Amino acid sequence: MQQSKIKVGIVGGTGYTGVELLRLLALHPDVELACITSRGEAGQRVSELFPSLRGYVDLPFTDPAQANLAECDVVFFATPNGVAMQQTRVLLDAGVRVIDLAADFRIKDIAAWEKWYGMSHACPDLVAEAVYGLPEFNRAQIAQARLVANPGCYPTVVQLALLPLLKAGVVDETQLIADAKSGVSGAGRKAETHILFAEAGDNFKAYGAAGHRHLPEIKQGLAAMSGKPVGLTFVPHLVPLIRGMHVTLYARLIKDADVQALFEEHYRNECFVDVLPNGSHPETRSVRGSNQCRIAVHRPQGGDMIVVLSVIDNLVKGAAGQAVQNMNIMFGLPEATALELVPLLP
Amino acid sequence: MQQSKIKVGIVGGTGYTGVELLRLLALHPDVELACITSRGEAGQRVSELFPSLRGYVDLPFTDPAQANLAECDVVFFATPNGVAMQQTRVLLDAGVRVIDLAADFRIKDIAAWEKWYGMSHACPDLVAEAVYGLPEFNRAQIAQARLVANPGCYPTVVQLALLPLLKAGVVDETQLIADAKSGVSGAGRKAETHILFAEAGDNFKAYGAAGHRHLPEIKQGLAAMSGKPVGLTFVPHLVPLIRGMHVTLYARLIKDADVQALFEEHYRNECFVDVLPNGSHPETRSVRGSNQCRIAVHRPQGGDMIVVLSVIDNLVKGAAGQAVQNMNIMFGLPEATALELVPLLP
Amino acid sequence: MQQSKIKVGIVGGTGYTGVELLRLLALHPDVELACITSRGEAGQRVSELFPSLRGYVDLPFTDPAQANLAECDVVFFATPNGVAMQQTRVLLDAGVRVIDLAADFRIKDIAAWEKWYGMSHACPDLVAEAVYGLPEFNRAQIAQARLVANPGCYPTVVQLALLPLLKAGVVDETQLIADAKSGVSGAGRKAETHILFAEAGDNFKAYGAAGHRHLPEIKQGLAAMSGKPVGLTFVPHLVPLIRGMHVTLYARLIKDADVQALFEEHYRNECFVDVLPNGSHPETRSVRGSNQCRIAVHRPQGGDMIVVLSVIDNLVKGAAGQAVQNMNIMFGLPEATALELVPLLP
Amino acid sequence: MQQSKIKVGIVGGTGYTGVELLRLLALHPDVELACITSRGEAGQRVSELFPSLRGYVDLPFTDPAQANLAECDVVFFATPNGVAMQQTRVLLDAGVRVIDLAADFRIKDIAAWEKWYGMSHACPDLVAEAVYGLPEFNRAQIAQARLVANPGCYPTVVQLALLPLLKAGVVDETQLIADAKSGVSGAGRKAETHILFAEAGDNFKAYGAAGHRHLPEIKQGLAAMSGKPVGLTFVPHLVPLIRGMHVTLYARLIKDADVQALFEEHYRNECFVDVLPNGSHPETRSVRGSNQCRIAVHRPQGGDMIVVLSVIDNLVKGAAGQAVQNMNIMFGLPEATALELVPLLP
Repeated sequence: MQQSKIKVGIVGGTGYTGVELLRLLALHPDVELACITSRGEAGQRVSELFPSLRGYVDLPFTDPAQANLAECDVVFFATPNGVAMQQTRVLLDAGVRVIDLAADFRIKDIAAWEKWYGMSHACPDLVAEAVYGLPEFNRAQIAQARLVANPGCYPTVVQLALLPLLKAGVVDETQLIADAKSGVSGAGRKAETHILFAEAGDNFKAYGAAGHRHLPEIKQGLAAMSGKPVGLTFVPHLVPLIRGMHVTLYARLIKDADVQALFEEHYRNECFVDVLPNGSHPETRSVRGSNQCRIAVHRPQGGDMIVVLSVIDNLVKGAAGQAVQNMNIMFGLPEATALELVPLLP
Repeated sequence: MQQSKIKVGIVGGTGYTGVELLRLLALHPDVELACITSRGEAGQRVSELFPSLRGYVDLPFTDPAQANLAECDVVFFATPNGVAMQQTRVLLDAGVRVIDLAADFRIKDIAAWEKWYGMSHACPDLVAEAVYGLPEFNRAQIAQARLVANPGCYPTVVQLALLPLLKAGVVDETQLIADAKSGVSGAGRKAETHILFAEAGDNFKAYGAAGHRHLPEIKQGLAAMSGKPVGLTFVPHLVPLIRGMHVTLYARLIKDADVQALFEEHYRNECFVDVLPNGSHPETRSVRGSNQCRIAVHRPQGGDMIVVLSVIDNLVKGAAGQAVQNMNIMFGLPEATALELVPLLP
Repeated sequence: MQQSKIKVGIVGGTGYTGVELLRLLALHPDVELACITSRGEAGQRVSELFPSLRGYVDLPFTDPAQANLAECDVVFFATPNGVAMQQTRVLLDAGVRVIDLAADFRIKDIAAWEKWYGMSHACPDLVAEAVYGLPEFNRAQIAQARLVANPGCYPTVVQLALLPLLKAGVVDETQLIADAKSGVSGAGRKAETHILFAEAGDNFKAYGAAGHRHLPEIKQGLAAMSGKPVGLTFVPHLVPLIRGMHVTLYARLIKDADVQALFEEHYRNECFVDVLPNGSHPETRSVRGSNQCRIAVHRPQGGDMIVVLSVIDNLVKGAAGQAVQNMNIMFGLPEATALELVPLLP
Repeated sequence: MQQSKIKVGIVGGTGYTGVELLRLLALHPDVELACITSRGEAGQRVSELFPSLRGYVDLPFTDPAQANLAECDVVFFATPNGVAMQQTRVLLDAGVRVIDLAADFRIKDIAAWEKWYGMSHACPDLVAEAVYGLPEFNRAQIAQARLVANPGCYPTVVQLALLPLLKAGVVDETQLIADAKSGVSGAGRKAETHILFAEAGDNFKAYGAAGHRHLPEIKQGLAAMSGKPVGLTFVPHLVPLIRGMHVTLYARLIKDADVQALFEEHYRNECFVDVLPNGSHPETRSVRGSNQCRIAVHRPQGGDMIVVLSVIDNLVKGAAGQAVQNMNIMFGLPEATALELVPLLP
C-alpha cells in the first residue's frame, strides 16, 4: 500500500530560500506541494517569476489570506524575520508541523534576540519548545519536534567546523576566531544598492565587524557543544560569487590531539559532512547546489594553531537543503531523500 | 526481473564535458560506470580531480592502454577532436556503440572537415554511417545508430532556434544571421591564457568573426532542415559567465506567418525545448545545469525581421546532457531518464 | 597670466555617471568643482558615499534648493530623464552652459520623445536649440553650443561604428542590424532586483527586443549621417561585467569598397576613435576607464555582409568622458584634456 | 633648464606587473621608456599584446640579448623569481639602479629564501645590500639605494596594517593572525588550470594554509617593526575578482590604547595610506587602479581583540605602483608623481 504524500506549504516563496525549496521539493518523491504564498505576487504562476521552474512547478502564488495552510502536514517559512512568530501557534494548534528558515526561533535568550533583531518576540514559549535544526548535533530531538528553527548559514558552517574540537575539549574555547566569507545570494533577493552587480561585483569587503546577528546564534550553539561559554570573534565578508560560503576558523590547541582523525571519526556516519584528506583546501564550488558541507583541517608549521576550512552552499546546507533534511527526519524518511545532488562543477 | 545495467565507458574524463557526463551518469538508474580513461591522470581517483564527485563516483582514471572498452555497451568520447576517429572502428567491430562529443563525425563533407580541423580524417566511411545526434531533428535514426555524432554547442542552439522557421519555409534562408554568445566553459579546461579569470573576467569580445569551425556544421544542419543551401553569418562572442550559451538570430520573413504559433506547434511534444510566451527574453541561468533549450520569438515593431532568442547550458544540452539523451534513445529508455534536472537559480 | 578656472556644477552626483564625472574632473587642470547637488544625500561628503574619491573630492552634496548653480560656467546634469528640462532654461538665461547626460534634449521629434519617455516635454524650443554632442560628427556646432545633449551609450557606439559606412553610402541603410551588449553599470545605481549581483551575475540575456528607448535616438543620428531614413533592428543584451559596451553591427555592402581603408581614413585624426588592424576583435577591457572607442571591421568569407565590432566604456565615452570631451570643445581647451587615461587592464 | 628624463628599462614586460608598470610610466612626466624585454614576444609591439596601451606605448619588445639595459638609469625586473639575481650585478656595476618586483632580494636569510623558493641564490652579498622597498617603513634607505627589493603584495598589505600596532607595542606579537584574500591577477598571467575563468570564477577557496612563500617575508618585516620575533598564522584565499587584496588581521591587545588614534597619528603624513573613520569597512574597489592602501580598525564588542581591515590593489600598491613610488624616492622626485590616480569605481 502506498503511503500518502506529505502535504507541504511554503510561506514566502519569492526569495532565494523559497525558490531553492521549490527546486528541491519539486523532485521529492514523498512530497505534494500544496501551497506557496506571496502577498506581492498572488495570482502569478511561480514559474513566471522563476522560469527555471517551468515544467516542474505549476502552482500560482496564493494570497496569504486565502491560503489554507492548516491543511498541510508541514509548513516552511521562507519569510523575513518576524513573520513566522506571528503565524506559528495557529498552525501548531491545527496539528501542522513548522520549519522556520528565518531567525524567529533560533535564540533561546529572548532578550538577546530582541536586541539583535530589533523587535519584541511574539511567542517566547514557542522559542522554548523549538528544536534547533542542526541534524548533526540534534538529530533525535528534530525527529520529535513540532517546530524546528532552521539554522542560519554562517551558524551552520561555523558549528560544523568546530563541533569535533569542542566535543573533544582540545581547543581553547575562549579565543575562537571565525573569518567567514559569503556569496551574495546570502543577502537575499531584496533590491538594495550594496548588492547590485556593479557594487558587489569585482569587489571584496568585510561587513559587520563590530557585531553581526548570527553571532549570538553561533555562540549559543558552540556553548551547547562545549558545555561552557565560548569567546568568539566573528568577521563576515562579502564575496563576488552567487552561492557559496567559506569559513576559516582559528583555534588554539590546548591538548595534544590528532585533529584529522578526530574529524574523520566524528563525522564517519554523516552523509552531508565530508572530511577531506589532510592538506586539502575545500572550494565553494565543490558543494554548489548540494547539501554537502566539506571540511579540511590544518596545523600550520606543526604549531598549536588549528586552522579549519569549511564550505557549504549557503542556500542548500545553509538554508533550504537543511530544511528539507530536517523535514525528512521529522517524517521518518531516509535523511537524504531528494538531497542526492551532485554539485554543479564547473 | 531486473534488466542488467548499461555498461558505460568514457574516454577522456578530465575536461568539462567529461565531468559533466559523470555528474549526469552517476545518478542514472540504468547505467553502470565501467571505466573512465585518462592518460595524464591514470591511477588518480576521479574525485580527487573533481571533489564535487566525492561520494558519487568512486572510480580511478584508467590508462587508455589498460582500459577494456570493448566490454562496454556504449563508449562516450569526451576527447579533443581527432581522437575518436582513431578508436571508433575497433569498438564498433566489437559491438560497442559510440557517442562522440567531439567533432570527428559531425561533418559529412570530408574535405570541409579536413580544412576546418586541420587534419586528415582517419575513417571517412564511418562519417557516412554516423548519425547526427540532434534528437529534435533526427530521433528515429539515432535510435538505430551504432555511432552518434553529438552536435556542437553553437550548432545545437542555432539549429533549434531556426528549425521551425526553415521547416515552414517562411524566412529568407540565404541571409540568416546568428549572433552567438558563449560562457567560458565552452572553451574547455585546457590552460590557455585568453581564458584565464583575469583575462576573460569583466570583459566581452567577439572572436572568430572571419570564420569558426562550427560554421560548416551549422550550415549542413540548416540546409538539411531547409532542403536548400543556406547563407549564414555567424559571429561568436565570449561572455564572462561559466555555463550558458545565448544566440540572437535574425531572419527576414518572406511569407506571412504567426511565428509564435509556429514554434509552439513545432515543439509541442518536445520535453527539452521550451517555447516561452510572446515577449519573453530567455536567460542563460534559467537553464543552468539542465538539458533545456528555451526559445523566445520577437518581431520588432511588427516589421519583417524575426528575432529568435535561444539559450542552453553549453555543457548539458550543448554537450553531455544531449549525449545522455542520445544514449537513452539508443537504448530504448525514456528520453528524459537522469535528465530531470531543475535548473540552478540563482 | 593664468586663466581662471572653469567653475563646474553637477546636478545629481550619486549615480554612476556622477561619480565618473567626479573622477575625471577631479584631475582636470582647468576645472574648479564648485557644487554637486543631491536631494537625498545633502550634507554628506561625496567621499563618504564614494570612498574612491577620498583625497580628491572634498565637497559635500548640496541640497538643490541651496545650490547656486547660476554662478557656474557650466552645469552637467547627471540626473534621471526629465530633470534637466525643468532647470535648463533658467541656467541658460543666467549665461550658464549646460551639458545634459540624460535624454531630455537628444531627440528632435518631440512626439517620439514623449512616446518613448512617457512624459510631456517641458521645453521643446530648447530641444530645437540643443546640439547633439557626438564630437566626431558634430564638433563645430558643439564648440558654439549653449546646450549640449550628451549622447546615450548605445547610440554613441552604434553611430561611431556606422558613420564611415553611411557617409560613404556603401551599405544598404534600410536593413541594418545592431546586436548590442552592455555591462550592468549601464543600468545605473538604482536598487532594482534584476541588476542584483545574484540575478545579473553568471547570466546573459537580451532585453527590450521589441523596442528600446535608444532606438529613435540612434535612427535619428544614422539618418543624419546617411542623409536618408534608415531601417535598424536593435537588440540590446545585459552582460555580467561592470563597465563595457560592445556592439556587433551587420550591414550589407551595396557598392564595392575597401572598408578597412574607409574606416582608417575616416578616423585618421580622431584621438578617441581607434581603428584596429584587419582581423582584430576589440575587447571591452581594452577601453576600461578610458574615453576610447575601438573598432574592427570584418567581411566574413569575403561575402557582402560587413561585420563591424566596436567597444566603449559605457561610463566614459558612453557618458561622463564624452561629456568632458564636449566641455573641452565648448571652452576651447585641447579636446583630450583630463582624458589621457590609459585603460585599466587587467 | 629642463632636466633630462630618467631612462627606464623593464625586463619581462608580458605579465601583469609589466603591463601595469607601462600603464603608470607611460604618463610619468619625468620618464623615458627606453626598453622592454621579452624573449617570447621579441619584435612584437607591446600594444599588440596589450591593446590598452595603443597610443601610449609605441615600443616593441626587445630580445633580452639585444637590449642595452646598461644605458638605462633604472631597470625594473617584472620577471619570475630567480631572473633578477642573475642580471643585477652587471647592471649595478654599470651604474644602473635596479628595482626588483620579484622575490630575489626580499629575504635576508639566504637559507630560508632557498628553502621557500627552491633554488640556490646567485648573489647573497647583493641581498645584504638590497633595501626593502616599503616606503612607509624604509623611506630614507630607499632614497640612497642602488638596489630595491619591491615587497610582495601580501607582505605590503599585512605590514601596513600592523605597523602602528607593533611600533607601539600594544599587541601580543606572538599570536598574530592574517586572513588574507587576493584577486586572481595576483597569480600572474601564466596559463594554469586553477586560475581559468571557469575554475576560479564563482568560487572561493583557501590555499597554502600549510605555508606560503610570503610568510617568511612578512615575518621578517614584522620583526623589524616589532624589534622582536613574531608569531604569525597566515592563510591566503583566492577571490573571484581581478584586482584587489584584502587582509583581515587579528591581534590581541596587551596594553590599553586608542587604536584608532594610533593609526591616524602614525599615517598622518603618508599620501598612500588612508586610515578610514571608526567603524568603516574598506572595499577593494575603493583602491582599484590606485596606489592607495586603506585601513580600518575595529575592536568588536569592546573586547581585547583588535581587528584590522586593509585593502590594496595588488598590482599597484602591491607591485607596480609601489615600484614607481620607490623610483620616485630614489630619484628625488615628489613621491606621488604619476601616481595621482583616482580609483575606478564602479
